[in-house]
Amino acid sequence: MREVKFYDTTLRDGTQAEDFVLSLQDKLRIALKLDDLGIHYIEGGWPGSNPKDAAFFKEIRNYTLKNAQIASFGSTHHPTKTAETDPNLKALLSTRTPVVTIFGKSWLVHVRDALHITPERNLELIAGSLRYLRPQAKTLFYDAEHFFDGFKDNAEYALATLQTALEAGADCLILCDTNGGNLPATIQQTMKVVKERLPDAPLGIHAHNDSELAVANSIAAVEMGAVQVQGTINGVGERCGNANLISIIPTLCLKMGIPSLAPENLRNLRRVSRFVLELANVTPNRYQPYVGRSAFAHKGGIHISAVEKNPLTYEHIDPELVGNRRRILVSDLSGRAAIKRKAKDFGIDLSKQDPVALQILEDVKDLENRGFQFEAAEASLELLINRAMGRGKRYFELVGFRVVDQKLNENDDPVAEATIRVKVGGNIEHTAALGNGPVNALDNALRKALEKFYPQLKEMELSDYKVRVLPGRDGTAAKVRVLIESQDSSDQWGTVGVSHDILEASWQSLVDSINYKMYKDEKQKSAKC
Amino acid sequence: MREVKFYDTTLRDGTQAEDFVLSLQDKLRIALKLDDLGIHYIEGGWPGSNPKDAAFFKEIRNYTLKNAQIASFGSTHHPTKTAETDPNLKALLSTRTPVVTIFGKSWLVHVRDALHITPERNLELIAGSLRYLRPQAKTLFYDAEHFFDGFKDNAEYALATLQTALEAGADCLILCDTNGGNLPATIQQTMKVVKERLPDAPLGIHAHNDSELAVANSIAAVEMGAVQVQGTINGVGERCGNANLISIIPTLCLKMGIPSLAPENLRNLRRVSRFVLELANVTPNRYQPYVGRSAFAHKGGIHISAVEKNPLTYEHIDPELVGNRRRILVSDLSGRAAIKRKAKDFGIDLSKQDPVALQILEDVKDLENRGFQFEAAEASLELLINRAMGRGKRYFELVGFRVVDQKLNENDDPVAEATIRVKVGGNIEHTAALGNGPVNALDNALRKALEKFYPQLKEMELSDYKVRVLPGRDGTAAKVRVLIESQDSSDQWGTVGVSHDILEASWQSLVDSINYKMYKDEKQKSAKC
Repeated sequence: MREVKFYDTTLRDGTQAEDFVLSLQDKLRIALKLDDLGIHYIEGGWPGSNPKDAAFFKEIRNYTLKNAQIASFGSTHHPTKTAETDPNLKALLSTRTPVVTIFGKSWLVHVRDALHITPERNLELIAGSLRYLRPQAKTLFYDAEHFFDGFKDNAEYALATLQTALEAGADCLILCDTNGGNLPATIQQTMKVVKERLPDAPLGIHAHNDSELAVANSIAAVEMGAVQVQGTINGVGERCGNANLISIIPTLCLKMGIPSLAPENLRNLRRVSRFVLELANVTPNRYQPYVGRSAFAHKGGIHISAVEKNPLTYEHIDPELVGNRRRILVSDLSGRAAIKRKAKDFGIDLSKQDPVALQILEDVKDLENRGFQFEAAEASLELLINRAMGRGKRYFELVGFRVVDQKLNENDDPVAEATIRVKVGGNIEHTAALGNGPVNALDNALRKALEKFYPQLKEMELSDYKVRVLPGRDGTAAKVRVLIESQDSSDQWGTVGVSHDILEASWQSLVDSINYKMYKDEKQKSAKC
Repeated sequence: MREVKFYDTTLRDGTQAEDFVLSLQDKLRIALKLDDLGIHYIEGGWPGSNPKDAAFFKEIRNYTLKNAQIASFGSTHHPTKTAETDPNLKALLSTRTPVVTIFGKSWLVHVRDALHITPERNLELIAGSLRYLRPQAKTLFYDAEHFFDGFKDNAEYALATLQTALEAGADCLILCDTNGGNLPATIQQTMKVVKERLPDAPLGIHAHNDSELAVANSIAAVEMGAVQVQGTINGVGERCGNANLISIIPTLCLKMGIPSLAPENLRNLRRVSRFVLELANVTPNRYQPYVGRSAFAHKGGIHISAVEKNPLTYEHIDPELVGNRRRILVSDLSGRAAIKRKAKDFGIDLSKQDPVALQILEDVKDLENRGFQFEAAEASLELLINRAMGRGKRYFELVGFRVVDQKLNENDDPVAEATIRVKVGGNIEHTAALGNGPVNALDNALRKALEKFYPQLKEMELSDYKVRVLPGRDGTAAKVRVLIESQDSSDQWGTVGVSHDILEASWQSLVDSINYKMYKDEKQKSAKC
């Protein structure tokens, strides 16, 4: 059976997108998620270009990956250097990744106007760089930048660069539509010539979405025999983005008979898509093909009865194959089943007919209408289900809080102070704390008040704090959603709060996080008994 | 020269999208905009299905259109009725539109499971409906619903429905990929057979985006001879949307040699795209092909110098052809050339050798290291450049602020109050205001203090407020970046603030926004003198 390998460049080309920023920790977490998903190659960055990328390659060596191989990315050597003296090629090798990818110029316009060298010298750069890397790289890929534009301009020269790279030891030649301007027909006609001239060369495709054709161009290349597809999660990338692997993967696996991902991994597609969005704090696109919230949403009675009889009447695939689900917008049945499933995940036995299930569903719908979102805040959902079932133990009660944030003079830093009153058992605890900003002051005061009653809170820390302003045109009066990620030595959990007041929203999320810590410790203790 | 006609269904299929709502007034304004743009057919709605659509057809008759013809949309007659007795067909004719479009079934699964009739009866429905409409419709289109899926299931039957529609008088047969699941190769192979069997039939394409291939499928159909492309503005539509005319139009006009829109109209493409988003209150997708804010944005020194020498090195088209513009992003990757270029955009003359340019670059780098980001905050950058050049007029000075946010009891809403002291000219203004949360209180207090000195601030409003917690593992003590978008009747501008304290960060961004408003008003006034 034919196989196509996926090469993800979310961590490198993806971060070229405007307003898409990943921390080192984010990059490591995404790499592990992609490995889980079964992605074959993960491009971690350009070690010569910035220190964050170099740190990634160092850190990722501490993990054992199940499926993926890590790739480092760089350019052919500098025209004024040799391969041996070029610091960027050295930086590439110092990453000790199993895969090294370098890109070179295919288009004479770039050779002249960007590198200012002769066409022959460019071929020397390609040959020299690959020959130098070859003995030390387990796998060596060559990205032919601007290949399709270069081919249009001077086909013979573009082909000569490929031939040079192949002879110098490249394991795969990846043809790039760097400017994203080419049509599928051009991709196919060009690849036909390449295959005639280099019949034994394994080929890959790297497409950009400037004409809304990156997915189509990638598929067109696979139809012409490409064995590697480069792209990013959700199509994030420079300008209009890269080819979207979240669309390409299921199309190949489910429609083109190319089973490059195991079916059980394909079911994680939606989860991985959301995970990357959450880490980068990007609002999901509800209309996103395959994985969007609206992708399998059906309105109206006729559609619904047809879909219930035979889903293929209005669905191009079974949504569960990619981890999505059908949404019937007028019926609450699917909702109740989902609540039951979720409760089961949490170890709570709940029948679909139980009126509590309906109550929970209504609570969730009501909260979602007010801007709550539980996908990244399952701890809040678990507490909500428990409370609805009458099992929500309250470890403390808020009486009130007051936060003062004061900046006395233009050049002074502001000073934030929080006072809180909480009731624990019969005691009222009234404490105050300063903080690095008002939310931090609130957090500090709450911990100060509670830690003497619940010393295990010292083990717990907040690992992430995210704020999203909810859509609307209310400016500074808009609602905000606060997501907090917390962790202790054994677990990690997410909680949510929503309010017009950012301190109130943060407070809700903090309170859930602390309650969840105590609840889960008790649950784990009783499970052991 | 070959021509392809564009058939817009934003007002009908577009409004099937979840969370996309247009009022009657919106629909009329969009129709006039589409007419201006040079769209050939505008589908206004399904008069049989809802009263808003019927009202649209009545109202639009009061306008004289320059380019477009209005189309009404409906189904073949009900199986229990005849064409003459069917109320929906009557409703269609009562719209008195020059174009009538009806859809019928091509797929036996639907004929059996949705209509519950025999294959023969379905052919009667198609023939009867079209024959009845023919004498009264100037132009009559037939949408073959689920054509490609029907063809896969039973090619002969699917072809028979087309043949029937053609003989009953349809002027164009539009082949629909209703479920959005087909690949370009399938579109082309199927159309090849259709063209062999019905060589004289004008064909059209109606594609959905469930596989992220709607644009590619439309282009594939045009390559096979389609003379009509149906789609929507920005690709809005049921589930994952319809084919995006905003991408298809420039691809046909600029890359395929099909000049279906005049070049001067093509320059309005971005404006029309934004207009529809504004009316529907949808946040623009900055990465949207051709018209997005990031579509021609360049980061990094190498890209920038190459683009300045020869734009085609990193741009697939000249952005101005579709009304967009190139943006040189100031980021820590770029150098003095970018600052110079940026200053020029702002109308500030700055030589690359000017030591001030170096100073600005260092300031920008320093601020970026502290978490500022100017990509979405060009107003803050413009103020910074002006200040560096000794021209930064200060319209007011902060003396201090104090924000109190208090929640007295667990079930009370918190109350936020801000007091501020600002100096304007020689006066100290000390004011207080309440707000919907602490940031809004600060905003309200600042406006209250300044509006009596600067009444033009009343024209200005904050259109968006974004908070991003900067990467790091500091939990609630992390730094936050606040981006504010502001607008008045003529402009829109972005400003930024960064601090560990969200109120301080919001304050910085607010102050820049207000300063920019005053600065730009003066600049515009002096430009007029």
